Amino acid sequence: MPPDATATPTSPAGLRRLAASLDEHEPLRHLPSRYLLPEGLVYLDGNSLGALPRHVPDAVADVVRRQWGEGLVASWNDEGWWQAPQRVGDRVGRLVGAAPGQVVVGDSTSVHLFQCYVAAARLRPGRRVVVADPDAFPTDLHLLSSAARLLDLDVVPARPADVPTLLAARGAEVALVALSEVDYRTGERCDVPALTSAAHGAGALALWDLAHSVGATDVDLDAAGADLAVGCSYKHLCGGPGAPAWVYVASRHQRSVDPPLTGWHGHADPFAMDGRYEAADDVRRMRIGTPPMVSLLALDAALDVFDDVEPSRLRERSTSLVGLLVRALRDVVPELPLAGPGDPALLGGHVAVRSPDAYGVVRALAARGVVGDFRAPDLVRLGVCAPTTTHADLVEGVLALRAVLDAGEHVDPAHAVRSTVT
Amino acid sequence: MPPDATATPTSPAGLRRLAASLDEHEPLRHLPSRYLLPEGLVYLDGNSLGALPRHVPDAVADVVRRQWGEGLVASWNDEGWWQAPQRVGDRVGRLVGAAPGQVVVGDSTSVHLFQCYVAAARLRPGRRVVVADPDAFPTDLHLLSSAARLLDLDVVPARPADVPTLLAARGAEVALVALSEVDYRTGERCDVPALTSAAHGAGALALWDLAHSVGATDVDLDAAGADLAVGCSYKHLCGGPGAPAWVYVASRHQRSVDPPLTGWHGHADPFAMDGRYEAADDVRRMRIGTPPMVSLLALDAALDVFDDVEPSRLRERSTSLVGLLVRALRDVVPELPLAGPGDPALLGGHVAVRSPDAYGVVRALAARGVVGDFRAPDLVRLGVCAPTTTHADLVEGVLALRAVLDAGEHVDPAHAVRSTVT
Repeated sequence: MPPDATATPTSPAGLRRLAASLDEHEPLRHLPSRYLLPEGLVYLDGNSLGALPRHVPDAVADVVRRQWGEGLVASWNDEGWWQAPQRVGDRVGRLVGAAPGQVVVGDSTSVHLFQCYVAAARLRPGRRVVVADPDAFPTDLHLLSSAARLLDLDVVPARPADVPTLLAARGAEVALVALSEVDYRTGERCDVPALTSAAHGAGALALWDLAHSVGATDVDLDAAGADLAVGCSYKHLCGGPGAPAWVYVASRHQRSVDPPLTGWHGHADPFAMDGRYEAADDVRRMRIGTPPMVSLLALDAALDVFDDVEPSRLRERSTSLVGLLVRALRDVVPELPLAGPGDPALLGGHVAVRSPDAYGVVRALAARGVVGDFRAPDLVRLGVCAPTTTHADLVEGVLALRAVLDAGEHVDPAHAVRSTVT
Repeated sequence: MPPDATATPTSPAGLRRLAASLDEHEPLRHLPSRYLLPEGLVYLDGNSLGALPRHVPDAVADVVRRQWGEGLVASWNDEGWWQAPQRVGDRVGRLVGAAPGQVVVGDSTSVHLFQCYVAAARLRPGRRVVVADPDAFPTDLHLLSSAARLLDLDVVPARPADVPTLLAARGAEVALVALSEVDYRTGERCDVPALTSAAHGAGALALWDLAHSVGATDVDLDAAGADLAVGCSYKHLCGGPGAPAWVYVASRHQRSVDPPLTGWHGHADPFAMDGRYEAADDVRRMRIGTPPMVSLLALDAALDVFDDVEPSRLRERSTSLVGLLVRALRDVVPELPLAGPGDPALLGGHVAVRSPDAYGVVRALAARGVVGDFRAPDLVRLGVCAPTTTHADLVEGVLALRAVLDAGEHVDPAHAVRSTVT
């Protein structure tokens, strides 16, 4: 339910009471206790790097000491390392509406995107146009340009809202519509089923970048009829820094999809050591080389948190948190305009406000123990990580933002240096 | 010094005395104590997955608990995560004769190979031939075929010994000579400086796959004038299962090399979030997406072992071990022919013998606590990992092989099932 912008602002005390009540009653209120976060820190950057699940250090220690140190090479069989990219893929798939057998994990989001761009274009030979959002995360655009150069494609820019019009005009030329469900800056969602249908209506494929979606939205790839999707595991899934990303290929495409990175792990019979490439006849053909097992198994363990969680419940929790964040921002810092919509149903797992001093604001918040992030040129991005963030965190974060602005801390020269990494 | 095949075979007791003497006097004899290996196991598969360095579990625990769990997103700056691919790359580079600033780590060997194949061909526009060893590790051939398909190249097969003749005949057409220094099956080395010079003499580039070299041979990329190289970190470097691989680009090519996987980590200014790709002006342009930091930092820690080790000394140790292994095989199991040369100077870090019952032999050895590996159709491959293997390991392994053959354990039906993973 979107907050009513015309209502009387709630007082700080009222917001705190509301947060406490939601944290007491929300059905998944027990999830944050499954994570370790430094005492007193208000961490609103889980959409950049999710927090550490409490049980993961022991799980990683087991991987290192026992599986690697004692099992050695036999662990590729005995511990199921070889099959882990599919097994972990299925666990992620459950959170994005993918039935088993359609997701693998292993490489970075960037590598998986390149695999998909080339593979998608090859599934629609004769069509030379790929439609992409010019405001997508840069790596998507970089890799799509590279794929387009290799395959002689035209990348035609269109914001999601303009895609149907473009398809109506030029649909017969379009091989692929490649979009992100959630805008990495503003948090705005687009309509995955409608845009997938629009692509299909033109005979094109739909590729979804779900980096900011998985764990935050209720995207349902199978129900939407999506063709390909790629996503990140180190944000809302809390899989660890640089946790391997994942790629989805709808079952109907798995015997025809023809990716460019034909590494030996995608071979039908890798240990035949055959110099001729014969692709596996299922989603394994998206595998490339030997995946980083310590990172991959840290992600595997991190996913244990979701075993007893219905994905729809996780979305409800995310929406509750995002809704409170929007309300608190409107009530407490009304002078900072929202960069995206105010209705949590139209948002993913983060909210951004605009400020000409955005970088200084983020630095000043950090000095107060509130971690958000800056996106050039003018965004203060506040992340809601459904499993780890509490309603109280969000109210305290927004009240800290008020205090920063009131004290002028955001224009303190100590906070005015641009970071190289956020 | 190659063993003399005509000399009287040394007795088991004599081989054990020799091994004990070498293990007492070899200058790097202290290295194996830096690793954890199960008591009583003779591990001759470090060329597949290297053993666990003793200090790595604590280092990984620090990465997980403190850097990720407490530092959270700030660790990208505060712990130097963002720069780690170059920093760790330089540490690997020292072991392959690469001056700093020419190596990055981050993706799998397969992904790095694809980057290099396409990038190399683009550095020699107008030349359409790529020369590759038809007996190379399959992933090399698969990815080269894929790159060739995208760029309309011809892959011309040639064994390393035949490359100079091919270059003499067709050199003007050749863009790239892509070879492995060490044959993954037989252990045979080829001459990196001579073949690199031959490629350059024809105006072509040389790309070296050093998966089985780093930590085992004295390859010197800068001295050889190599153009590009790729290698593995989970074999002789003991970086952990699926540890990120590495890629070398000679300084002179770094401003012109044009790889296909243009991920945002390779951008000149990644946090400008610019939709136009502008490559970094150094080896960073080989970076792609967010690397798997837990695996990458496990590798970083594993490399500490080599900080006080001269690379030339490591090669001397490897040669001493390989020499003893060859001698023991010839003396103890003379009926099993070596698959490669007998001179350790011409070998990398493993030795293979042929047997029609190779798979059964490997299984029966494993039942006796000696881990080697099988390579289809008829190779028993015994790995020497210079930092972790002792001379005594090799003699005990070969004596166990004798015992297996004498007892007929290799033809026991219990050992006759083909593994899916070795």
